[in-house]
Amino acid sequence: MPKHPLDSFFSPDSIAIIGASRDDKKIPGLLLTFLRRNGFAGTIYPVNPSCDSIGDLTCYPSIAAIGKAVDLAIVIIPARAVLGALQECAAAGVKNAIVISSGFAEEGGESADMQAEIAELARRTGMRISGPNAEGFYNEPQRIAATFSPTVDVKPDAPRLLATPRRVGIVAQSGGIGFAIYNRAKAMGVAVSKVISTGNESDLAAGEFLDYMAQDADTDVILMFIEGIRDPQVFMAAAQRAAESGKPVIVTKVGRSGAGERAAASHTASMAGWTAAYDAVFAKYGFIVSHDLDEAVAIAAAFASAPFPRGDRVAIVTVSGGAGAWMADTLAAEGLQIPELPDALQAQVRALIPSYGSPRNPVDITAQAVHSGGLQKIVELLERSDDVDIIVVVVSLSSETRIPVKQDEIRPLIAAQRKPILFFTYTLPSLFARAELAESGIVAFPGIAAFGRAMSRLVSRSRFRLATSVAMDGPGRTFPKGPLPAQLSEHESKLLLREAGIAVPQGVLVRDASALTALSGVTFPVAMKIQSRDIPHKSEAGGVRINVRDPEEAAAAFDELIARARRFKPEAGIDGVLIEPMARPGVEMIVGTVNDDTFGPIVMVGLGGISTELFRDVVYRPAPVDAAQASAMIGELKSAALLNGFRGAPKADTAALAALIAHVSRLAAEMKDRVSEIEINPVRVHEEGAGITIVDALIAGRG
Amino acid sequence: MPKHPLDSFFSPDSIAIIGASRDDKKIPGLLLTFLRRNGFAGTIYPVNPSCDSIGDLTCYPSIAAIGKAVDLAIVIIPARAVLGALQECAAAGVKNAIVISSGFAEEGGESADMQAEIAELARRTGMRISGPNAEGFYNEPQRIAATFSPTVDVKPDAPRLLATPRRVGIVAQSGGIGFAIYNRAKAMGVAVSKVISTGNESDLAAGEFLDYMAQDADTDVILMFIEGIRDPQVFMAAAQRAAESGKPVIVTKVGRSGAGERAAASHTASMAGWTAAYDAVFAKYGFIVSHDLDEAVAIAAAFASAPFPRGDRVAIVTVSGGAGAWMADTLAAEGLQIPELPDALQAQVRALIPSYGSPRNPVDITAQAVHSGGLQKIVELLERSDDVDIIVVVVSLSSETRIPVKQDEIRPLIAAQRKPILFFTYTLPSLFARAELAESGIVAFPGIAAFGRAMSRLVSRSRFRLATSVAMDGPGRTFPKGPLPAQLSEHESKLLLREAGIAVPQGVLVRDASALTALSGVTFPVAMKIQSRDIPHKSEAGGVRINVRDPEEAAAAFDELIARARRFKPEAGIDGVLIEPMARPGVEMIVGTVNDDTFGPIVMVGLGGISTELFRDVVYRPAPVDAAQASAMIGELKSAALLNGFRGAPKADTAALAALIAHVSRLAAEMKDRVSEIEINPVRVHEEGAGITIVDALIAGRG
Repeated sequence: MPKHPLDSFFSPDSIAIIGASRDDKKIPGLLLTFLRRNGFAGTIYPVNPSCDSIGDLTCYPSIAAIGKAVDLAIVIIPARAVLGALQECAAAGVKNAIVISSGFAEEGGESADMQAEIAELARRTGMRISGPNAEGFYNEPQRIAATFSPTVDVKPDAPRLLATPRRVGIVAQSGGIGFAIYNRAKAMGVAVSKVISTGNESDLAAGEFLDYMAQDADTDVILMFIEGIRDPQVFMAAAQRAAESGKPVIVTKVGRSGAGERAAASHTASMAGWTAAYDAVFAKYGFIVSHDLDEAVAIAAAFASAPFPRGDRVAIVTVSGGAGAWMADTLAAEGLQIPELPDALQAQVRALIPSYGSPRNPVDITAQAVHSGGLQKIVELLERSDDVDIIVVVVSLSSETRIPVKQDEIRPLIAAQRKPILFFTYTLPSLFARAELAESGIVAFPGIAAFGRAMSRLVSRSRFRLATSVAMDGPGRTFPKGPLPAQLSEHESKLLLREAGIAVPQGVLVRDASALTALSGVTFPVAMKIQSRDIPHKSEAGGVRINVRDPEEAAAAFDELIARARRFKPEAGIDGVLIEPMARPGVEMIVGTVNDDTFGPIVMVGLGGISTELFRDVVYRPAPVDAAQASAMIGELKSAALLNGFRGAPKADTAALAALIAHVSRLAAEMKDRVSEIEINPVRVHEEGAGITIVDALIAGRG
Repeated sequence: MPKHPLDSFFSPDSIAIIGASRDDKKIPGLLLTFLRRNGFAGTIYPVNPSCDSIGDLTCYPSIAAIGKAVDLAIVIIPARAVLGALQECAAAGVKNAIVISSGFAEEGGESADMQAEIAELARRTGMRISGPNAEGFYNEPQRIAATFSPTVDVKPDAPRLLATPRRVGIVAQSGGIGFAIYNRAKAMGVAVSKVISTGNESDLAAGEFLDYMAQDADTDVILMFIEGIRDPQVFMAAAQRAAESGKPVIVTKVGRSGAGERAAASHTASMAGWTAAYDAVFAKYGFIVSHDLDEAVAIAAAFASAPFPRGDRVAIVTVSGGAGAWMADTLAAEGLQIPELPDALQAQVRALIPSYGSPRNPVDITAQAVHSGGLQKIVELLERSDDVDIIVVVVSLSSETRIPVKQDEIRPLIAAQRKPILFFTYTLPSLFARAELAESGIVAFPGIAAFGRAMSRLVSRSRFRLATSVAMDGPGRTFPKGPLPAQLSEHESKLLLREAGIAVPQGVLVRDASALTALSGVTFPVAMKIQSRDIPHKSEAGGVRINVRDPEEAAAAFDELIARARRFKPEAGIDGVLIEPMARPGVEMIVGTVNDDTFGPIVMVGLGGISTELFRDVVYRPAPVDAAQASAMIGELKSAALLNGFRGAPKADTAALAALIAHVSRLAAEMKDRVSEIEINPVRVHEEGAGITIVDALIAGRG
């Protein structure tokens, strides 16, 4: 296993605590207490000029006074003293530092300047710095508690509940949330590798920590809490690495609402950014988005305990008919299949349950089959069946003295990891039941909606394929050069698309009514559209006439369109009127791109007309995408049905639409320094093999 | 307080246990143990011919041998002996019985017949019977545990956690779920009045129990779990009573998916029914639908602990910036407002928090302001502010030794119940913290999504107004009489609508091409549509021509339509061609009705065209509705924006649309024995004041 630059950060041999204290009511004292109580195996150097020792540890007046190599310094002193302390650390050759102290960028003003100097120090010296305003980390397998979070405190006699064979790594931009996730994972019996709270990210940011988790041998599943990404290029490279490693990443991104953005910004001074861009990036790398704490932990618990399923056919085994029906509804609403079991299998099941049970699916075994031992035998039958991909066992685990499962019989089925076998309890599980089941590698899931989501994500993640990266130097195509105005007219936009190799209608820009009589290459009926950089929304200005039937009608329309535009916006510069053949019918879609401040160009597709606005049926991806990714985008639209032969209509040419999306996305990526937005709206998608027609297009330049 | 027929059921002075046993490993023994351990204050009569006493209780050979009045008999004996035992109970004057035994309708066949006899016995004798296949009930204030559910077991030294001033009543058609809800409510500190598991409902069904809860002085909030309603008229009357009493009802209905329906049907032999009809009924009575156990309990906990808010403006007070941002996003996604606080209020808050906190909203007070006592003072400021309707406090409650709240200061604010003040904890709450906060009447909510939903429902329920009932004898209007065929043609459907007083276009049914030359009362251009009861979907058959400009074109179109219909379905009976003026433009909507097996006629409205099918943007209500309810239905559509001046278009005549919905709903209700479906699709809604045009309509009769 090659070394990662952050190995010495997460697995230090020596830790100095700058600002160490005896008082374990306060943060520095708490941190030392937790570090020792968890049994850190390396050397601890308290640093505090005002004391000689803390317990049995020598206390040093300064980092320099230690005189030995220090892998990690934890800094918990007033904000204005932090920079000086870090300079001393760097001078003493300390490899890594965590600044716990608050009062930096989140305060603004001079405090933000101090943070900038910390970042500069890291760049200059190579000492890696996490924080300020961080809550540190916990390395669970090695029991290194470099944090003051009370959630890592341990009682000597309480064994850690470990129900999952795999471990979850947690990267959070909020210490409160990072350790709350840890707290909840621990309660469920989910094994954790590391929890890191990244704070203000003066130097080390979430992307770099994701990169660490992606290669960490102890980490199998990754949970992230994001307020705003500061190192987007590093983040995307790390996301690619995580996807290539096959490690599922579950992510919560906050700052989606105005108030959430306000909170995220004032909290760790992060840019919350444009949500759709984040979701586009998450989708590209197969990240699983969750908006709920327990749901995120449940999804992680499923991945940490169950193998990928081969399909989406679920068998439900339940001791309560009502709970079984609820589970069936929940899983069906998540898009999973709960097929009635084949007759032969039903016959085998029926022999193991009372007459008032049901073998159909849900398999209602009733409490009776728990007593008779039928539960295990039925799970075994289902495990061997080729008609079942996932087994969900619904039980009540509230008892403090008994569990409804025979461990010796169920354990080998779980351990074999041939199929997901997961347990939901409709009552709250007792600690006793959790601990007992943990011995068989079973997590007791208590939330039904969260469980359903976890099952659905288990299936969808097993089907995810990372897109191959798009070669930007295409088949000898060069995109237009030169600066662009802030707003191009439709005609100019279409010329640019044509230069980039994208087919647009054969149109003629007429600048003068006299030119109308000598029109060539135009077949009536035509559409006529006013052209002006100052009137991007032509319909509003009454600037469009369709179905114009002959040159006489066209001449009248020309005068009318010019006159209307002059009335609408007297100061507008008018280029003329664009005359195009009427487009053939087709499904109207929107294709566009926009440049996000964090992630750069993002490409989108949606159903045209009112649906995009009313139903928000739009799919985004970071640009560029290839045709395969573009096809996947189209498939994610709720309105995809409309393109696939809706109500007996012919199938639409989705291949041509996908090619357009891919082409436009490359254009946006190549020209990202000059193009800020592209909107093709609508593009008509004709029937299969008949291609598309770009009816309208607008490009905004960087000015 | 007037007496309710079920008073003696839920508050019996005497209970006989038929099939009582010493063996508390089995159900009869467990039930007796729980009944005694909870301290039932009345008399217990064990009945079992094979023993003389159980502990210090005399055991009777038969119910008759008791020789005293018995309020409630609990029957736990083999299925085939149940009917005889119940007959003896009735003969002995027992008022109520609960049959715990399984093996009745859920098994089918002869077992189902036994259940029918039980129902008949109840009808004949007046003895009320709950079950069979039931799990009994728990009356918490009086501590009557008439159930074997382990969730009601109590330890002598464990005080019941009670955080809510109001109590929740639970009615569940599944014992497993009913007591799982109780188990979860208890863990959160939610006070419960009664939990009843209704089982197979041979006599007493969910509707009657809802009626009891609606008038029960101990019950303030109602939680229901439904598989299928067997007493729809009683249920709807009870729902009306609950709504009139102002008691919020939270409901989970399962059997929504095919597998869920299969499970519900085999489980308690209930008809799961058409989900949309259930949701329509729930919406009418302001029921709050939830699909998650913890969410349902969280919503109930909010109603049981907080007063109705005056508006939807939430102030978030948080000790963690990240958790505050997440809460803001969660509440915003639920449609609540999280406005930035007014400057003056921010200034007051700023004085109570450190410089790196934020007074904006979310108010990030940081851990510092917990130590300094700022938390309580800030909550007090917000409680007094007219700019805040709801206060959400976000804290960490994982500590086993400390809570971040000063009880003496917060308690009076909670007790005043002037504004909802609710607490969310991002770590899992410790038992210690739950118990401490309960003393101030505070529930610690641990699920962020569930909490957000609870806040949203608190607001929406506070705005709910029960619709006044619709008088069915309208202004002298009589609906058509006589039987109807299974399928009416468009022309026949429109004639029926016209007879019922609903305006339809002035159309002419032409049976013969020769009639076309003498057409009067028709203004060209026209639409021409084939008319046949056998071709309800005319477009599929090529049976529609629009924009026909003159009589000549009409003559050709007539021949073509007839010829096409003959080719499409040679055996079809053809009535002719309907000729109507082309409809003016407008927003195309669907209005329809369908007769549900459980709840009768249901009226629906949706956006016409593809949106109804693609985006399921449809709203249902039980028919009839009045115009006000119809307006509310229109307002619930996602596509409502389209009617309200979308993208600068004129507002549509929603009043005319609402009148149509109301009218059609009355027609469906009055004619429910003859009409099974009405579909007006599309109806064009013109601009405000310009009314509507019914373009197409189809009515299906009961045949």
